[in-house]
Amino acid sequence: MELLKARILKDGILENDILKVGSFLNHQLDVELLNEIGKEFKERFQNKNIDKILTIETSGIAIAVIAAQYFKTPVIFARKTEIKSMDKEIFQSTVYSYTKEKNYNIMVAKKFIKPGENILLIDDFLARGKAIEGLIDIVGQAQGQLAGVGIVIEKGFQDGGKLLREKGVLLESLAIIDKPERGKIRFEK
Amino acid sequence: MELLKARILKDGILENDILKVGSFLNHQLDVELLNEIGKEFKERFQNKNIDKILTIETSGIAIAVIAAQYFKTPVIFARKTEIKSMDKEIFQSTVYSYTKEKNYNIMVAKKFIKPGENILLIDDFLARGKAIEGLIDIVGQAQGQLAGVGIVIEKGFQDGGKLLREKGVLLESLAIIDKPERGKIRFEK
Repeated sequence: MELLKARILKDGILENDILKVGSFLNHQLDVELLNEIGKEFKERFQNKNIDKILTIETSGIAIAVIAAQYFKTPVIFARKTEIKSMDKEIFQSTVYSYTKEKNYNIMVAKKFIKPGENILLIDDFLARGKAIEGLIDIVGQAQGQLAGVGIVIEKGFQDGGKLLREKGVLLESLAIIDKPERGKIRFEK
Repeated sequence: MELLKARILKDGILENDILKVGSFLNHQLDVELLNEIGKEFKERFQNKNIDKILTIETSGIAIAVIAAQYFKTPVIFARKTEIKSMDKEIFQSTVYSYTKEKNYNIMVAKKFIKPGENILLIDDFLARGKAIEGLIDIVGQAQGQLAGVGIVIEKGFQDGGKLLREKGVLLESLAIIDKPERGKIRFEK
């Protein structure tokens, strides 16, 4: 997606080879850009009859909810921490975080995914793919159908995307970045 | 807001006198309803020349980002946990959680709020108001102007709303609930 790549080049910041997009994607949110991203996801999954979009707190929520306006579906976000008002009947999966070097649980109330529903997963970043694997696990527990995975920025130099594609998952990443070198952002696609 | 109150009565669940709205507001998200909520906030703060909307992870994000489409402003969400890609220059405030019985920090990168900017705070629930107080503290640190506070559901039987109004904060709550009694949801307003 050219608009997104131009924005990453313009406002993305590399610090110790970590790409920061906090000025438009995951801390401050550019709602106009999110709308273009939402339209692009709709375009890429247009024949998929999506029933629900599933994402994960925190950074996936804004993207998923704007995209859902084009799909005309509800959004569910998996929670990482239990809250008091959460249902007792939940699907759970354990996700390993490489950043934090520990496991965490993700939770979705059972009543929100029905057997046979077509579920589209949306998230901001894909690196090793552990969070997405956890969401796929939950869709499986619910006997839902995984329609596909929509990612804003895939780190092409980590193996999450490769592993998902090898499993036959329909993965659409709007920008795929290479490993940054000498402070330069480069795109695979 | 009548549509919202009707929805709370239809789909809200009372369990041990705690109102659960996970089927449309803070776990599964009804994007059509969120749009009506966003329009209503725009109506209520229409003369306020809002520059930015500030919310807090997690449940505030979806509401704020949909509302921002009507205000045509960016959204910033305060983070409760530090992430690797977060700026080092941050405004911080400490918030006491009555639910978890402990303090937590909220953080906003300094560069996203400039002195004099008109900031609208948006969140899903207001009870004791500690999270909103933390956001107000951050707006103050940034020398921003607090334009107002938009809340979807205020718990009228807790003192957060009263304290904010006493301080002269322009607080707009779309539904104000009374203390539930004998398993009944009741509205103050």
